[in-house]
Amino acid sequence: MKIKKVCVLGAGTLGTRVALQAALSGYEVSLYDINLKSLKSAKEVMETIVTKLAKASGLESESGLMAIEKITFTKDPKVAVHEADIINESVLEEVSVKTEVWKLFGEIAPEKTIFTTNTSYLLPSMFAEVSGRPSRFCALHFHDVFTAKVVDIMPHPGTDPALIPLLMDFGRSLEQVPVLVKKENNGYIFNTMLMSFIGAAGKLLVNDIASIEDIDKSWMVNFNMPKGPFGILDTIGLETAWHVTKNQPDKASQAFAALLKTYVDAGKLGEKSGEGFYKYPKPKYKNPDFLV
Amino acid sequence: MKIKKVCVLGAGTLGTRVALQAALSGYEVSLYDINLKSLKSAKEVMETIVTKLAKASGLESESGLMAIEKITFTKDPKVAVHEADIINESVLEEVSVKTEVWKLFGEIAPEKTIFTTNTSYLLPSMFAEVSGRPSRFCALHFHDVFTAKVVDIMPHPGTDPALIPLLMDFGRSLEQVPVLVKKENNGYIFNTMLMSFIGAAGKLLVNDIASIEDIDKSWMVNFNMPKGPFGILDTIGLETAWHVTKNQPDKASQAFAALLKTYVDAGKLGEKSGEGFYKYPKPKYKNPDFLV
Repeated sequence: MKIKKVCVLGAGTLGTRVALQAALSGYEVSLYDINLKSLKSAKEVMETIVTKLAKASGLESESGLMAIEKITFTKDPKVAVHEADIINESVLEEVSVKTEVWKLFGEIAPEKTIFTTNTSYLLPSMFAEVSGRPSRFCALHFHDVFTAKVVDIMPHPGTDPALIPLLMDFGRSLEQVPVLVKKENNGYIFNTMLMSFIGAAGKLLVNDIASIEDIDKSWMVNFNMPKGPFGILDTIGLETAWHVTKNQPDKASQAFAALLKTYVDAGKLGEKSGEGFYKYPKPKYKNPDFLV
Repeated sequence: MKIKKVCVLGAGTLGTRVALQAALSGYEVSLYDINLKSLKSAKEVMETIVTKLAKASGLESESGLMAIEKITFTKDPKVAVHEADIINESVLEEVSVKTEVWKLFGEIAPEKTIFTTNTSYLLPSMFAEVSGRPSRFCALHFHDVFTAKVVDIMPHPGTDPALIPLLMDFGRSLEQVPVLVKKENNGYIFNTMLMSFIGAAGKLLVNDIASIEDIDKSWMVNFNMPKGPFGILDTIGLETAWHVTKNQPDKASQAFAALLKTYVDAGKLGEKSGEGFYKYPKPKYKNPDFLV
């Protein structure tokens, strides 16, 4: 089968980006959300991204803006899914919400539609049955779409294997590097590694082995990276990090989760709130004098 | 006190580089090894590094080559340590060897000499007593000196705190970013984080969650890095990685250690042997087509 129409569910950060990239890649696209305001703001975000991308590449933004105009922004599920070849779902990361959405779209989607979820930490098997077509249900997980261009393809045990190469190609058509997660795994590939070294950094901090700055410096200098683990945590958001960390049973993770909680309780959520481990918009680690 | 003369023990990869950087930074330098061949090859390596650095910076290599000529290469411990203000020890990573070396130099070094060890995975407290001057004994651990310019300063419980700022300044004078490891910790700061995400990558592999290539791609794309965990392992050397991994008691580490052992037994030690997880000198991950 050939994918022509892409239906994206949920106009949050990631849904907006997936819908935009699909439109830029030439697909017919609909973006669904229950909230009209979210749809409006999604369109504005898309225009900002297209303008930035054009600036960075030195090209005109016109064709990108035209692609946005062709997207159907709708709160009507039937309009959204009309003739869709594939759905990519990016709604709220809550089991009850995703269950409801997949129940609804499982009933109204055309028979041909492939179902994919963009869940970050949940698993496709949790929604495959309720969608009514478990064999055509798979996780298709984007990271950032425009900067971190990798997409995880993660089947659940009941996914039809024929779906995999098709989703790999679809990922490539969206300018992503597709990677296969052969078995269901919380955190796919990258987040598993990310949370592991961030956990190690947290352990170094709570065990008073080294300071936030020195831990970040070690990472930045050795890997020639613009941020260390605590700078990265500020970008991820400390509330998300707290949620992930508190579910790990070992003593050091629990101690680190408790520390993260003190930041969250103080309203220090990271970059988006203006302060986390560092203060924004000018965090210390961006200072040229940081690495001395 | 002011450091003027630096004595480096052990003309291996790291000792050679520390001695060279100390000479380039204007210190009087001696490089000691029991093996004359190692000393000869150390000098050649230094000349290669200086030539490369000069090429990269567009400067003449002459002053660098002159600095090398001023270094005392010797297998005579007394000549090496004569008037030394500081020793940095980079001999074989074996307790018995380091113990013997510190016993010897503890006896013959001038009273003023500060003792530092560049050990990778052992701890300064293991040699502080035998050196005869535990309060002036500290770990001063370099990573690569010329590319990864970070130096760990890690005291043991008996180290005189006054030594810390002095070693921080000494590290800076060698163009390194000094970081303080407040308490003894195997693997300092960076290696703790490194081995943790590499362990996570190993777990993904042995649990058949994803392939070597897909795990590396996820890391490379998300962090915009030239290598993923398995490419990094090939650089570290699979024998070293096996040694570190087999000492971790959990099931996944043991399974990964067993996998590493099959590579080691087959002579696939990584980059240096021409093959590890990838084949060298042209590993797949350097191919521009790798990330599609």
